[in-house]
Amino acid sequence: MTSKLIMLASLPQGVPQAANFITGFEELPDVEPGEVLLKTLFISVDPYLRAKMAGEHQPPLNAGDVMYSRAVAEVVATKSPDLQPGDKVMAFLEWRDYLIHNSESLTLLPNNGFPLSNHLSILGSTGLSAYFALTDIGKPKAGETLVVSGAAGAVGSIAGQIGKLMGCKVIGIAGSDEKLQWLQADLGFDGVINYKTTPDIAAAIANLCPDGVDIYFDNVGGAISDAVIGKMNNYGRVVVCGSIASYNDTSAATGPRLLPLVVYKQLLIQGFLITDYKTRFAEGIAQLQQWLAAGKLQYAETIMNGFDKLPEAFIGLFNGDNQGKMIVKT
Amino acid sequence: MTSKLIMLASLPQGVPQAANFITGFEELPDVEPGEVLLKTLFISVDPYLRAKMAGEHQPPLNAGDVMYSRAVAEVVATKSPDLQPGDKVMAFLEWRDYLIHNSESLTLLPNNGFPLSNHLSILGSTGLSAYFALTDIGKPKAGETLVVSGAAGAVGSIAGQIGKLMGCKVIGIAGSDEKLQWLQADLGFDGVINYKTTPDIAAAIANLCPDGVDIYFDNVGGAISDAVIGKMNNYGRVVVCGSIASYNDTSAATGPRLLPLVVYKQLLIQGFLITDYKTRFAEGIAQLQQWLAAGKLQYAETIMNGFDKLPEAFIGLFNGDNQGKMIVKT
Repeated sequence: MTSKLIMLASLPQGVPQAANFITGFEELPDVEPGEVLLKTLFISVDPYLRAKMAGEHQPPLNAGDVMYSRAVAEVVATKSPDLQPGDKVMAFLEWRDYLIHNSESLTLLPNNGFPLSNHLSILGSTGLSAYFALTDIGKPKAGETLVVSGAAGAVGSIAGQIGKLMGCKVIGIAGSDEKLQWLQADLGFDGVINYKTTPDIAAAIANLCPDGVDIYFDNVGGAISDAVIGKMNNYGRVVVCGSIASYNDTSAATGPRLLPLVVYKQLLIQGFLITDYKTRFAEGIAQLQQWLAAGKLQYAETIMNGFDKLPEAFIGLFNGDNQGKMIVKT
Repeated sequence: MTSKLIMLASLPQGVPQAANFITGFEELPDVEPGEVLLKTLFISVDPYLRAKMAGEHQPPLNAGDVMYSRAVAEVVATKSPDLQPGDKVMAFLEWRDYLIHNSESLTLLPNNGFPLSNHLSILGSTGLSAYFALTDIGKPKAGETLVVSGAAGAVGSIAGQIGKLMGCKVIGIAGSDEKLQWLQADLGFDGVINYKTTPDIAAAIANLCPDGVDIYFDNVGGAISDAVIGKMNNYGRVVVCGSIASYNDTSAATGPRLLPLVVYKQLLIQGFLITDYKTRFAEGIAQLQQWLAAGKLQYAETIMNGFDKLPEAFIGLFNGDNQGKMIVKT
């Protein structure tokens, strides 16, 4: 059987281009005992993959490597007693249409009535990132002001809603009026800023946050973060969940120094990694499912159809093509 | 009775100058019930006073204000049942040779055999800052690498020694070979860097810290901090206790962006304010006294003699004139 795959042909310089990827084909061997043949159904594309291409996220992705990320797949054939044909599983999988995989490192997905793609979004690492990063580092208190950058993205859109559930005033920053409309009208954000059309983001923050900013949930870094951090209150918390504005930098970017503000205002700035919370995933999923079931949480998935769309979907992350989680249905 | 005082004549632009201060005289009223007449003995000069002059540390110091800081004084006359002539007290006091003060807001100092000036250094807010900032934010573990900037200063010299007591490898950064000699030969630092004569501080850090930096205890900010933070390990902690390199900036300084590093390495960067630890001062003083009594902790005080030296002592902080705590004996 032939497996179609997508490989990193070359390391991107700046924003990734289609030419950095190449499609290949490989004849699969027979399924051995303990293994299963998988057909991938949904593959997650995420900004952190760009950091891997820069050697800044471990392990790195190098030219010649088959791309890989979190994915949902179906068992097509099995030589493992643990899995049956038709079972749905999740794992970090190579970007292939079919692949052979050891059954032990696959997570069997429950048939719980939620769409399968949810395991890569609201009930997966992005929903869990929003939940743990906001509650554990941000520690929101009712009445506080929370600003979210990348607010219409997979993590930001959930973090903002959880902030609302915890009684915060929530301001979202995103890059299109369509996204802002969604944040405010559908998700209940209290205020929104279009960073592409707002000449002075610091002034917009000051205007929307007359009591200052207590928590900044940051997915983007760069000039947007400079503007927000300048408006933090004493004892403010900056939850650094991503820094997409910097991932394509070809040289070290400069910006206003943060350390004087940190000491003047006793700020906390902390980086977040979802894999540090593995032991608490069940708790997080239970909470997110409860909010979903109660209609208190909404989510969006931008699903591109077709295995061949994987590079385009990934590149689209850096153009803000996604509303909520970007996923490829293979 | 006449009180001699030092007033802020004008807000400094850049590094404070002698001309920013003016000496004045004021006739004191009679001591009223509940009040005492104090003679100041030791006055602390500290970098944070510069931040007050920039409105960045609350409450601000404005032109026309009498300067004030932590000081030790002796009760000369009393109309309070709580205090007797000869009692030694500590408080935030105006820079005056004699002053009248409400007895209630004065801390009576114990006659515990330690020099009175120690209440402004090793047993005062600088020793306590080193202890609480390092243990509570830095959370040192045996075998970790700790880098201290401003290492020969009041806080840094104690923080480095506490790091050694907790089993860390400790590297100190300071601005003269005499200071480095003291850090290494007397205080037991494992390695030292003279930031004034080292062209590539990042390379020096890499050389002295082959296993990377786990904790950075920062008193200075600026380019030194850029170099150290670039070498932090995953889950590194940056304790921001001061940012003296920035206090005299007349415009917002720029430097390499920190947020990408924060997310790539899951760094914690946290600002520290000693007054947040008021309820734990007794615990900290007890621990510091125990280490002192056991000969495990050394400290330095740079004492300038004469009330009139206050401006010079304060300005000297920005030239690195002090080894350990800068204090004026009035």
